[in-house]
Amino acid sequence: MQPTRLHVQVNPASALAEAFTEARIRGGLPGQVTMRFGQTPEALEEGLATAEALLLVGAAPLQDLPRRAPHLRWISYTSAGVEWLLRAGLPASVTLTNASGTHIPKAAEFALLSVLMLNNRMPHFATAQRAHRWAPQPAGTVAGKTALILGMGALGGAAARALAGQGMRLIGNSHSGRPHPDVAVMTRGEGFRAHLPETDFLLITLPLTPATDGLVGATVLDALPRHAGVVNLGRGEILDADALAERLRDGRLAGAVLDALPQEPLPPESPLWDTPNLVITPHCGLYDPDAYAPRCLDAFFANLARFQAGEPLHQVVDPARGY
Amino acid sequence: MQPTRLHVQVNPASALAEAFTEARIRGGLPGQVTMRFGQTPEALEEGLATAEALLLVGAAPLQDLPRRAPHLRWISYTSAGVEWLLRAGLPASVTLTNASGTHIPKAAEFALLSVLMLNNRMPHFATAQRAHRWAPQPAGTVAGKTALILGMGALGGAAARALAGQGMRLIGNSHSGRPHPDVAVMTRGEGFRAHLPETDFLLITLPLTPATDGLVGATVLDALPRHAGVVNLGRGEILDADALAERLRDGRLAGAVLDALPQEPLPPESPLWDTPNLVITPHCGLYDPDAYAPRCLDAFFANLARFQAGEPLHQVVDPARGY
Ligand SMILES: NC(=O)c1ccc[n+]([C@@H]2O[C@H](COP(=O)([O-])OP(=O)(O)OC[C@H]3O[C@@H](n4cnc5c(N)ncnc54)[C@H](OP(=O)(O)O)[C@@H]3O)[C@@H](O)[C@H]2O)c1
Ligand SMILES: NC(=O)c1ccc[n+]([C@@H]2O[C@H](COP(=O)([O-])OP(=O)(O)OC[C@H]3O[C@@H](n4cnc5c(N)ncnc54)[C@H](OP(=O)(O)O)[C@@H]3O)[C@@H](O)[C@H]2O)c1
Repeated sequence: MQPTRLHVQVNPASALAEAFTEARIRGGLPGQVTMRFGQTPEALEEGLATAEALLLVGAAPLQDLPRRAPHLRWISYTSAGVEWLLRAGLPASVTLTNASGTHIPKAAEFALLSVLMLNNRMPHFATAQRAHRWAPQPAGTVAGKTALILGMGALGGAAARALAGQGMRLIGNSHSGRPHPDVAVMTRGEGFRAHLPETDFLLITLPLTPATDGLVGATVLDALPRHAGVVNLGRGEILDADALAERLRDGRLAGAVLDALPQEPLPPESPLWDTPNLVITPHCGLYDPDAYAPRCLDAFFANLARFQAGEPLHQVVDPARGY
Repeated sequence: MQPTRLHVQVNPASALAEAFTEARIRGGLPGQVTMRFGQTPEALEEGLATAEALLLVGAAPLQDLPRRAPHLRWISYTSAGVEWLLRAGLPASVTLTNASGTHIPKAAEFALLSVLMLNNRMPHFATAQRAHRWAPQPAGTVAGKTALILGMGALGGAAARALAGQGMRLIGNSHSGRPHPDVAVMTRGEGFRAHLPETDFLLITLPLTPATDGLVGATVLDALPRHAGVVNLGRGEILDADALAERLRDGRLAGAVLDALPQEPLPPESPLWDTPNLVITPHCGLYDPDAYAPRCLDAFFANLARFQAGEPLHQVVDPARGY
């Protein structure tokens, strides 16, 4: 049997670059693999020329693959969001897998934290603190309150489990409407809209696809009660941040925690920074710097063994659905 | 049998005044009670003249009780912290009970929230947000990290339970050193000091007494590792906030969440408001506005029945210990 030709391309500008070292990857490879490791455009080009499998850490230019990578059959991407990869237009002969699931323990904690912050008026206290204002706003516990989770995949499921642990009532939404053990009411497609008026906390854990782009705009936000809070852990483009900011400013919504922003890094001149009752975290809430790379690589190595054995891969992205 | 003479005194300036209405209290009284309800100094004076029991909502002038309240045998205070009442000097013939335990569900949630905020670098992100700075600082989950809880009564016990639920390792400290099912290592008295270097999060859930006044000062803070965070849910005087602020400013400590402040309301000119990595909540984190008064009154009514039956009261404060 011929060894499998793997190319590993790491974008040095990616936040993940430090954790995905050549030694760590080489150390975990199964037998019968020849691996190249690159960080430059030239190394990518050389690697693609012969590679059957590509392990990709951070973004890279991937247009025109049939010409550049005639043997390529698999791209394994070490993040969960693949929207830019699908926009690049992958050939039908290349299977794309992602890192969905790798974030679960940290996503559970961060989703819980975000909802507890909203419930306990932390965005309000942060705003009052900036103004040196002592402005108590007591709040009951989250138990019995309702969270609506848009996107019930790895992130949404982890959030549901963590919030159910605090006695919350959960409403879920997904493409399929598949039931989830911690969710009282599952909805599919547009079905979530009817539940917005009973929602205390809206969590966005969706992938960015043509169907979710701009999904949470003025219409959705205006159907929420005034005391509601919004959390975005998905992608900035899914939420109309300007519409949200307007409603936070005039009190039509109570608070928000955004880990995904319309522009990243958010530029210093963005009015979002000073929006009252808005908490911004710089897209690292779900990233566990110690656990992420080992977990992600374990899944990759297992997939690589499947690839060699001709078995179906896990974490496969469906380009037609967009996730 | 003579009816028990109860006086209820509500300080209209107290945050609790709204919830402890005359109707709500009257509605729950057992039989054989005559109740007076007052909100003014004059009403207090008249009530004290005949009362055997005093239900106190918020502060009131209570010096010289033997002369003013010759029949008084019991004061039931609707908060947990009784330091000012003990300073007033109660006669030995008067039993003092407090509301310790009433906060438990909300205290559990708020302690969990505070630790999750510190673990996820929320104080840092709030500071960066004020400066319009995108400054990622990823963090692992709290599971396996160590919290040291000073004060293992109602609040400390609730915190321990909530943090254990996230897989944390807990060290407790109390006067007695009594074991707690969620705490791996219990210490007593000064015994906590040896554990400061292994502490990721220090929680203060102590009452204010002569022994705890200023307990967490420079010496304690300097024994913590640089990445540690501090939470104060007890009383402002227990923690040297200036020493804490200095260490947050120069990076000797990573963050803090203070629900109890050295002055309340904290005046606008306090330098604490702008201290980096310091989150201030205006002493309402543990207060559940819907649940508190009913829970507190249920305990009071049960105690009142014990008082009438000549049985020992619950939630009794020991003036010698100060809590
Ligand atoms: N903030 C961060 O650091 C961070 C970290 C990781 C991921 N993310 C983002 O979060 C996204 C989700 O990650 P994941 O791992 O949870 O993905 P996933 O496991 O693939 O789950 C996606 C979920 O969204 C649902 N969905 C997709 N399109 C939908 C639509 N149009 N309407 C309703 N539901 C729809 C899917 O429904 P079905 O279950 O029916 O298929 C599924 O439940 C990623 O794509 C990424 O952009 C952000
Ligand atoms: N932020 C807020 O809104 C809020 C709300 C409620 C209460 N509080 C404050 O929190 C305090 C604690 O409330 P709680 O209901 O938990 O009181 P508690 O049930 O009486 O518990 C007090 C705990 O502190 C320990 N302790 C007392 N003195 C000590 C010392 N010198 N060294 C070590 N441990 C000591 C006690 O030890 P033993 O177990 O051995 O007796 C006990 O574990 C209250 O007094 C109040 O000031 C604040």
